[in-house]
Amino acid sequence: MLTSLFTDHYELTMLQAALASGAAHRPSVFEAFARRLPEGRRYGVVAGTGRLLEGLKNFHFDDAQLKFLSDTKVVNKETLSYLENFKFTGEVTGYAEGELYFPNSPILTVRSSFAEACVIETYILSILNHDSAIASAASRMIASAGTRPCIEMGSRRTHEESAVAAARAAIIAGFDSTSNLEAGARYGIKTVGTSAHSFTLLHDSEEAAFTAQVNSLGKDTTLLVDTYDVEAGVRTAVKVGGPQLGGVRLDSGDLIAQAGWVRELLDDLGNWNTKITVTSDLDEYAIAALASAPVDSYGVGTALVTGSGHPTASMVYKLVARQDSAGQWIPVAKAAANKTSVGGRKHAIRQLNERNRATAEVVSLSEFSTGGPERKLSIPFVTNGEIDESYIGASGVKKARARHYASIQEMPGVARKLQRGEPVIPTIMRED
Amino acid sequence: MLTSLFTDHYELTMLQAALASGAAHRPSVFEAFARRLPEGRRYGVVAGTGRLLEGLKNFHFDDAQLKFLSDTKVVNKETLSYLENFKFTGEVTGYAEGELYFPNSPILTVRSSFAEACVIETYILSILNHDSAIASAASRMIASAGTRPCIEMGSRRTHEESAVAAARAAIIAGFDSTSNLEAGARYGIKTVGTSAHSFTLLHDSEEAAFTAQVNSLGKDTTLLVDTYDVEAGVRTAVKVGGPQLGGVRLDSGDLIAQAGWVRELLDDLGNWNTKITVTSDLDEYAIAALASAPVDSYGVGTALVTGSGHPTASMVYKLVARQDSAGQWIPVAKAAANKTSVGGRKHAIRQLNERNRATAEVVSLSEFSTGGPERKLSIPFVTNGEIDESYIGASGVKKARARHYASIQEMPGVARKLQRGEPVIPTIMRED
Repeated sequence: MLTSLFTDHYELTMLQAALASGAAHRPSVFEAFARRLPEGRRYGVVAGTGRLLEGLKNFHFDDAQLKFLSDTKVVNKETLSYLENFKFTGEVTGYAEGELYFPNSPILTVRSSFAEACVIETYILSILNHDSAIASAASRMIASAGTRPCIEMGSRRTHEESAVAAARAAIIAGFDSTSNLEAGARYGIKTVGTSAHSFTLLHDSEEAAFTAQVNSLGKDTTLLVDTYDVEAGVRTAVKVGGPQLGGVRLDSGDLIAQAGWVRELLDDLGNWNTKITVTSDLDEYAIAALASAPVDSYGVGTALVTGSGHPTASMVYKLVARQDSAGQWIPVAKAAANKTSVGGRKHAIRQLNERNRATAEVVSLSEFSTGGPERKLSIPFVTNGEIDESYIGASGVKKARARHYASIQEMPGVARKLQRGEPVIPTIMRED
Repeated sequence: MLTSLFTDHYELTMLQAALASGAAHRPSVFEAFARRLPEGRRYGVVAGTGRLLEGLKNFHFDDAQLKFLSDTKVVNKETLSYLENFKFTGEVTGYAEGELYFPNSPILTVRSSFAEACVIETYILSILNHDSAIASAASRMIASAGTRPCIEMGSRRTHEESAVAAARAAIIAGFDSTSNLEAGARYGIKTVGTSAHSFTLLHDSEEAAFTAQVNSLGKDTTLLVDTYDVEAGVRTAVKVGGPQLGGVRLDSGDLIAQAGWVRELLDDLGNWNTKITVTSDLDEYAIAALASAPVDSYGVGTALVTGSGHPTASMVYKLVARQDSAGQWIPVAKAAANKTSVGGRKHAIRQLNERNRATAEVVSLSEFSTGGPERKLSIPFVTNGEIDESYIGASGVKKARARHYASIQEMPGVARKLQRGEPVIPTIMRED
């Protein structure tokens, strides 16, 4: 499917006016960055890059799209001719997917003609803003969950396509699996699921439902025990599943108290290996509160797919430099009021201490080294229009997950704290 | 594109176990409803139905999807055979798209075999929860804006496909137009847009940029005047565009104060007909605060596409009745803890007073009449698997927009208040 109309009308009217003035062809640099993190968050997580690169392959205009733009008079004939042959031929570099970011980190840099960089603006921001918001929330949940696996199960609470992207972002941030089948099919992500309350209600009794489930899915399945009465549900589950019953799921009530006595009941009944999954409206705080409860895994839905209070990463995409008519690079930036930014192409390094622990995000207008232990943050994604395929699909998700894990390990431990605070490392803007 | 894998894994494992137990074929009724509105909201707006019906046409399983489900062992062979021939053959009724809803309004009712209703659960909820959340927020913005048009421009702040659905939902709720081109192409929605700060920065001066824009897009275009200095920007805009300049856009700073003196400046310069559009992080409260400022239209982005603090409508989809093995209908409901609901198929009527103003949402387990002025809320969407095409595409959006307008007009005026409060009309659950 073509991705080129996932674009704001004004990108194409700007293109039209710039084609007419001749400025459309000026070599330009755009940067995507976040002016700040959501209030109280210690770090953000870059996600969506792999999806962006995949979509960029299909970012061109076919006859039907051109006809729409022509019929609705969005742009004139000259612009339609330009779009007819549109293919991104420039350069995209940026933070690896899964990497952490901080205020003013230059997350993605696009260098091309103004025309090309302008036309792909909306698409870039849609993907980075959504996927990074989800990954940033997911990463905090993983920090709260410690060694217990988290299952992403929020598909029903968000747009059907966002759900697929959210599952992908959650896996990058460390989730173990997802309920979303399309995400499994597209990205090779592990999917899981057993049954809902409707399955129990469908049958003539809870025992009949559990028997049907165990007969079909095996004794290692997880039975949902809170449709009627939790204690009776657990006893029936054990009666039906026996000592090899895989797990029970609790989806309502006071989960901390319940998990405690359900564990004891399971142990009393000899089901020491039957696990407990909890799933009712969890977020990073509820997960943290459950740390001392005998829970084996968490299912997270609404809070994950809505970014736990911050459903968008608020990244912007700004022209920071462009050539003038003499071919000289000119740094540019908006000056008015409360949205100032720094002109010029940025380079970023994560400064480390002698134990390879991050100490600062250092951003400069030239390529540089801090002189000490450090890690360069920008990698090439698109070179002369050639997209690096290794970041797309299942392999991209694996890479991003590994990158995220390594970047989190590199942070001071305070990064994992849920309490509101400043970014865990400062962003230092160098003068050179 | 097929929609059938926009589904949680557990829908298919439930299907498998129910096929094995024989219960899969029991005639069943599921209902989608919201237990409550987001805190303080006076009403919710149903949206997504047209998208759902369109997607339902493509809800079947092709070879690649079946191979995925087989390779990953999501389900067994018997279940794959069932899915191979899957087509929804049941009945869907519900609230018209654009209609208002309240706690426990039976928004969508699906009657079919358990198997069919179960398999489409996740997809139904994804669409209704997302689109209704956006439409509900959009409707409040329209109430705040009064007669001034609102432009949807949040595409860059949400997933690229959510953006299209959000634009559609905004139009249903009364927005005038969108920036999203794909929404224009799919649903015949009016798209608008002119230029961004990057366009000004691209050129050698603001005047050069404005000249390029006016030359290409005409004098009735809207110039963005806050890249450098707003006053100088307005003067340059008038110099370039003359008295026929269409508009200026303010995207930063104190919009209330700015709009005031910019209007005076425009008037002083003779540009009485040049309009002022404001666009910086507006939500329903900011729009209300601007009511007395001389603003002509509002561009709304982030707050719209994220549901203004409530990005999901939290609807659930519950089995409320099913037949037993003797063919008798049995009302069913979860009983445990904090998520109880009422079993049995619901019917809903909006009770009106003699001036056709709504006074209550009346819900009953049987078809009924209040005896006074009233409006039946449920309409047929799918009958014996036959989808009513009139709700799909551009015609569906038009119908939904008209329905929303009429339903809002029918409400007491307090519905338009932004202050937190109870639902504007009570939901009365009748005992019969």
